[in-house]
Amino acid sequence: MKKISFILIALMVHGMLPAQFAGIQNNQEQPLPAGFKPASTNTFLSQYPAVNPDTRQATFRVVAPYAQNVTLQLGGKHAMTKDDKGVWWYTTDPLVVGFHYYAVMIDSVPVMDRGSEAYFGSNWESAGIEIPEGAEGDYYRFNKDIAHGEIRSLYHWSDINGLERHINVYVPAEYEKNPKKKYPVLYLVHGWGEDENGWSVQGHVANIMDGLIAAGKSVPMIIVMPSGDIKTNSDVRKASGDITDILIKDLVPYIDKTFRTYTDRDHRAMAGLSRGGAQTWNAVLNNMDKFAWMGGFSGSGRIGKNPFNPSASPTTVETAYNGVFKDAAAFNKKMKLLFISIGTAEGPGAKETYELLKNHGINNLVYHESQGTAHEWLTWRRALNDFAPRLFK
Amino acid sequence: MKKISFILIALMVHGMLPAQFAGIQNNQEQPLPAGFKPASTNTFLSQYPAVNPDTRQATFRVVAPYAQNVTLQLGGKHAMTKDDKGVWWYTTDPLVVGFHYYAVMIDSVPVMDRGSEAYFGSNWESAGIEIPEGAEGDYYRFNKDIAHGEIRSLYHWSDINGLERHINVYVPAEYEKNPKKKYPVLYLVHGWGEDENGWSVQGHVANIMDGLIAAGKSVPMIIVMPSGDIKTNSDVRKASGDITDILIKDLVPYIDKTFRTYTDRDHRAMAGLSRGGAQTWNAVLNNMDKFAWMGGFSGSGRIGKNPFNPSASPTTVETAYNGVFKDAAAFNKKMKLLFISIGTAEGPGAKETYELLKNHGINNLVYHESQGTAHEWLTWRRALNDFAPRLFK
Repeated sequence: MKKISFILIALMVHGMLPAQFAGIQNNQEQPLPAGFKPASTNTFLSQYPAVNPDTRQATFRVVAPYAQNVTLQLGGKHAMTKDDKGVWWYTTDPLVVGFHYYAVMIDSVPVMDRGSEAYFGSNWESAGIEIPEGAEGDYYRFNKDIAHGEIRSLYHWSDINGLERHINVYVPAEYEKNPKKKYPVLYLVHGWGEDENGWSVQGHVANIMDGLIAAGKSVPMIIVMPSGDIKTNSDVRKASGDITDILIKDLVPYIDKTFRTYTDRDHRAMAGLSRGGAQTWNAVLNNMDKFAWMGGFSGSGRIGKNPFNPSASPTTVETAYNGVFKDAAAFNKKMKLLFISIGTAEGPGAKETYELLKNHGINNLVYHESQGTAHEWLTWRRALNDFAPRLFK
Repeated sequence: MKKISFILIALMVHGMLPAQFAGIQNNQEQPLPAGFKPASTNTFLSQYPAVNPDTRQATFRVVAPYAQNVTLQLGGKHAMTKDDKGVWWYTTDPLVVGFHYYAVMIDSVPVMDRGSEAYFGSNWESAGIEIPEGAEGDYYRFNKDIAHGEIRSLYHWSDINGLERHINVYVPAEYEKNPKKKYPVLYLVHGWGEDENGWSVQGHVANIMDGLIAAGKSVPMIIVMPSGDIKTNSDVRKASGDITDILIKDLVPYIDKTFRTYTDRDHRAMAGLSRGGAQTWNAVLNNMDKFAWMGGFSGSGRIGKNPFNPSASPTTVETAYNGVFKDAAAFNKKMKLLFISIGTAEGPGAKETYELLKNHGINNLVYHESQGTAHEWLTWRRALNDFAPRLFK
């Protein structure tokens, strides 16, 4: 019996073995500098990139013996240095904690560092690196001592889109144990260039919600994470960011049919990050009969000038979104929460929106800041951790 | 309100924008040759690689203006040709239908083509391309006219491994509608270098099972897809392929506690592909009190010489696996199915095993061949499609 040999022969015939061995270029048996550990975002055998949790520095390693220039693209461009074995190295200054996409430019070609797992961002599979927080980051880490919900991966057919659409749905740990209980639903959308897996992979939504629910801080809820793109399968592919129609006519009815949900507006919320925040404002403020809670993380609605259409007349708080804010008292009666969050490194825009609305008499407003973080996943994990406990109470 | 501008500024500050625009190198607005369509395995905006479904040819496109040599690694090495814009091209001969990993070598550096989605293989994130079958491939495609099960993503704590372990679990469409019904369970393992997502992503397990169950060919069942590796998070990472202990002591009890399962051996099966097939033989044949059905797809047990330990005495059908086959009548009484499958391009090993066992008097044996396919996912989709209807009847 030479079964295993046949497998190896089959692999060689099919050209897989060279790639396999090349694949371990950042893998086991590579020594690490003192104090450094493999990043948690690496593939499981990869030693590099390596992170020093105390100094928050990261060391990158790229094997490219014939390249003239190798650059690390991570918060700017950094020239890597070649050693005498054709291996390129770069150690960063201390980085901001949290999750960062990065790319390696080899002679001007941006490539994904194969030491990293793939994280979908900028409309392609990207490398990423997590600079760990200490104990303050425990809320988004797996906690073996509490009950765990699930991320359910489903496809539903969309007549509007003409395609099956992939969604991820978080259900709380208790869901299967209470076969008659109904749950409120939060629709949670990713940002531009990412996809419906972003919140569960980069965002650690299950760990965050498991912790909040176990601690009694959040009401057990279902979280639906759809794609914020309308993907097409035509010969020339395009995407649109206008998901309101699919959301209202297609996704919400599908969820209410498939899961044990409360179907009234008081038990339905929506939030999103970056472009997903803008999508949330569009969808919710034009469908106030369906949602009573909303959040924008590092991205909210447009009041004033439209940066995508500068020639259009700027809106005001009275005219934006078909005048939904005009009668503040009426708005206050309907919307139970309007949550606006931003990283402090992102600029004053979110705070300006908040103050504009507050001064106009909108209440049930919450303004949340993530200290020291930018337009990145740590900002959004913190936003969700602050937002979710406020819902459905 | 300049919220959107702040987002763009934040992106630029954090070095994301150049990567974004570089990211669309294979994206929309690229013309396609007549008869070619974007591969279904591409990221959703990528035009290349493109496939001609009639000729089964694929055209690859790589932007690498300063490279000296660009090679496509797909069933051998193929030199790509540079055009006057610094873009490299290669069009294949007709390819075998099914899913193939591929790599692009840019001046000897293997990189993942960013036109492709990421598929975990060879222990890193790899590009892949699906060469579509015609109607005969419908069984693994999404069918909008039938009910759909779900893939549930869960983590469970393993004391043996000292880590949380990720599993995917297929539950049939009817599971939520029958809150008191119990189900049989198939444990289904991936091969070397892949991970617990392989069966649901590359293998399309949900589409295959949804179709078999809707057609009344398969009994509704739960399918548990664990990692076949024991991953460690130590400073120098290592993996082991011996999962029997974790499976028996940790995973099976966790599944029986978490899902509505039958817990007797008659309602528990295990199968795997390649190394996962070898793991199945190890686990099942040493734990016959727990499993009554088993399958090895392009990989089964070792009878005879051990290719990994050539100095060990070869086993015989009487001595292999602690002599479990020796008393054929006793084995036949216990094991309801021993399914052996292979692609015809993989060699005669699987058939030899089958004949060895058959001649020894083992029955309830099934030998299945996938015509014209090799050590790849189409072989394993076909194997599952033939295997699953035989279970739990």
